[in-house]
Amino acid sequence: MSVSNTIKAQMGESSWIRKMFEEGNKLRSIHGNEKVFDLSLGNPLLEPPSSFKDKLIEILENEPAGSHRYMPNGGFTDVRDSIARNIGGETGINFEGNDILMSIGAAGGLNVILRSILDPGDEVVIIAPYFAEYKFYIQHNNGKVIETQCDSKWCPDLESLRNAMTNRTKAVIINSPNNPTGVIYNSSIIQSIAEILKKCEEQYGNDIYLISDEPYRKLIYTNVKYPFIYDYYTHSIGVTSHSKDLGLAGERIGYISVNPADENRSTLMDALTFSMRTLGFVNAPALMQKVVSQLQETTVDISVYQKKRDYLYSKLIDIGYDCVLPEGAFYLFPKSPIASDEDFVKNLQDNLVLVVPGSGFGKKGYFRISYCVEDSVLEGSIKGFTKVFQYYKNKS
Amino acid sequence: MSVSNTIKAQMGESSWIRKMFEEGNKLRSIHGNEKVFDLSLGNPLLEPPSSFKDKLIEILENEPAGSHRYMPNGGFTDVRDSIARNIGGETGINFEGNDILMSIGAAGGLNVILRSILDPGDEVVIIAPYFAEYKFYIQHNNGKVIETQCDSKWCPDLESLRNAMTNRTKAVIINSPNNPTGVIYNSSIIQSIAEILKKCEEQYGNDIYLISDEPYRKLIYTNVKYPFIYDYYTHSIGVTSHSKDLGLAGERIGYISVNPADENRSTLMDALTFSMRTLGFVNAPALMQKVVSQLQETTVDISVYQKKRDYLYSKLIDIGYDCVLPEGAFYLFPKSPIASDEDFVKNLQDNLVLVVPGSGFGKKGYFRISYCVEDSVLEGSIKGFTKVFQYYKNKS
Repeated sequence: MSVSNTIKAQMGESSWIRKMFEEGNKLRSIHGNEKVFDLSLGNPLLEPPSSFKDKLIEILENEPAGSHRYMPNGGFTDVRDSIARNIGGETGINFEGNDILMSIGAAGGLNVILRSILDPGDEVVIIAPYFAEYKFYIQHNNGKVIETQCDSKWCPDLESLRNAMTNRTKAVIINSPNNPTGVIYNSSIIQSIAEILKKCEEQYGNDIYLISDEPYRKLIYTNVKYPFIYDYYTHSIGVTSHSKDLGLAGERIGYISVNPADENRSTLMDALTFSMRTLGFVNAPALMQKVVSQLQETTVDISVYQKKRDYLYSKLIDIGYDCVLPEGAFYLFPKSPIASDEDFVKNLQDNLVLVVPGSGFGKKGYFRISYCVEDSVLEGSIKGFTKVFQYYKNKS
Repeated sequence: MSVSNTIKAQMGESSWIRKMFEEGNKLRSIHGNEKVFDLSLGNPLLEPPSSFKDKLIEILENEPAGSHRYMPNGGFTDVRDSIARNIGGETGINFEGNDILMSIGAAGGLNVILRSILDPGDEVVIIAPYFAEYKFYIQHNNGKVIETQCDSKWCPDLESLRNAMTNRTKAVIINSPNNPTGVIYNSSIIQSIAEILKKCEEQYGNDIYLISDEPYRKLIYTNVKYPFIYDYYTHSIGVTSHSKDLGLAGERIGYISVNPADENRSTLMDALTFSMRTLGFVNAPALMQKVVSQLQETTVDISVYQKKRDYLYSKLIDIGYDCVLPEGAFYLFPKSPIASDEDFVKNLQDNLVLVVPGSGFGKKGYFRISYCVEDSVLEGSIKGFTKVFQYYKNKS
């Protein structure tokens, strides 16, 4: 055969994405684009801020020779310094440029981290519902996926986490604000997770990394102060991107930040740099590095996303759906009115509303709505959400 | 420990790169930048053509909404179509957009290909001297590296290749124009390689891929017509980048081209797309996709590189070095005047000339010179090359 058995099996596992995509295209071709209400994709709606284009052209017009050549695999020194200063300001922690590695988005960054720390069979704990790609990232880097659960408010179930830790645990990945739930982990949760990990480090004599995947960190709709992991836990690594906060998903630009308190930070950064190079990323795109380093204090207008959240959340609650109010990101993760989220999603599809079954995130019985779409799409979806909910209500 | 044992071992293997880099920095700090003649790095000297900046600004100023969002993992449809048309024109083969996947440079592309076709333990044949990163790409994707040899003209030793093929062979990687030798494989070599692979496919009943890594394809200094692999062998995949021909190494933009004659092309493209996504590349940088799709007929002024080649090659021959005249790329791969290339390189270093030992490319007894540097660096290096050659000549 042409392609590998491993990849074929993995593709089978994620085939629902493809099925949904194909189904969506079929519906669009039958009913027309404007009649299909697609809430299935996490593709940021908001354009980059206007300063993006200005900065980009300014940089282009003043760039020194060599600006598009290879630079050190971790990124331009001045860019890393600038990111370090900025995250230093946000966290109150003294980051240096050497603690930052510019990455190909958060997805690229996560692969670089996992490749650097995992030996075959090492275990990586994820918390369901989770971003489905984590499983592939872990498997590609020879790790073993260990799933733990959330409580009913979509916060990590600490007992479940505690029970999942073994002498092979190498890392725990958290994601806050969360995809798919939109929930933010508060400082007491981070504190509790840190305590569990510390205890296990002592018990097993291993370093265990807390990896915080933070691409939605600047998409927060409450006054909560975002609890960075670094103060709570020494062996911690942050990874983020500017896909959502600057609307640059297609440009693949993000960064990894290693805890300056980690006694192994220099060895770790050497390994990250090596993985960056040898996984074929080589370096983050040069021009985008320069641009985002000048836009660290800029964010898309998140009030637009917040209004969409408020609108759709209140509509769904009015209809009768059960849903935790998300404090960040641009997703809702309501309960399916019937046990089978896949049947429910199919029924919604028949009513021209596209969402993703919770099974895709390791959590049956729920579904994910992405509300980073035009208002007309949100408004158009209400009819379908209402009809399908009523249908199951009348049946029961 | 913090980082994985696998990565630590691999980093040890490639530690000479780091050592060279550190040694170079030490020499520069002692003697001053202009006194150290660094011919060790393959970092393209030539700036992108002026049309690059013009096109980029033109695209930015006219871009529709959504230009920086995620697009399909294989790249923008119009970009893939445009690349297909262009490579169709170059090869005379009817490529479609669906045969093209936009990648994060050739390095990213190679990892995507290997991930898509390799099951653990599958063998990938490379030809020494080879680009050292191939070994890591293969290992990261669970393949086994099989090294074969070249003849004295740096063309693949066909007997060595034939003997290396087994029932676990999944792919053979070729690289022409070659890094480190600069040699171009002519059509009769490609034909012979194709015949060996075809015979093995029949013998073992497996698909075996011929992967052609072509980042130097447009840096050719003879009138030879570049022999594309597609006409010679069905299960073939090309991968290239615009790092060298457009001077965009830091921007990480390239593409994979699947042979339109491959009966499994659609399955293969599905797997490549899946690997692109799940290895964390996600997609090639959006803006660069748009720019390079409009610069497919543009190349940096390669006569500049050719002059550097001619200058340094004739100087080295005059001194007495033994070297095959390279027809492309921007490297020379002369014989070390003593058996130990590492001792020789160390001696050159003491004379402030930096090159890379052939051992780094799987070929002891030789060394690689990268001549994509300022003329002053080439000129300044001659003294060291002469002195060290004479030193060994007088000793023998």
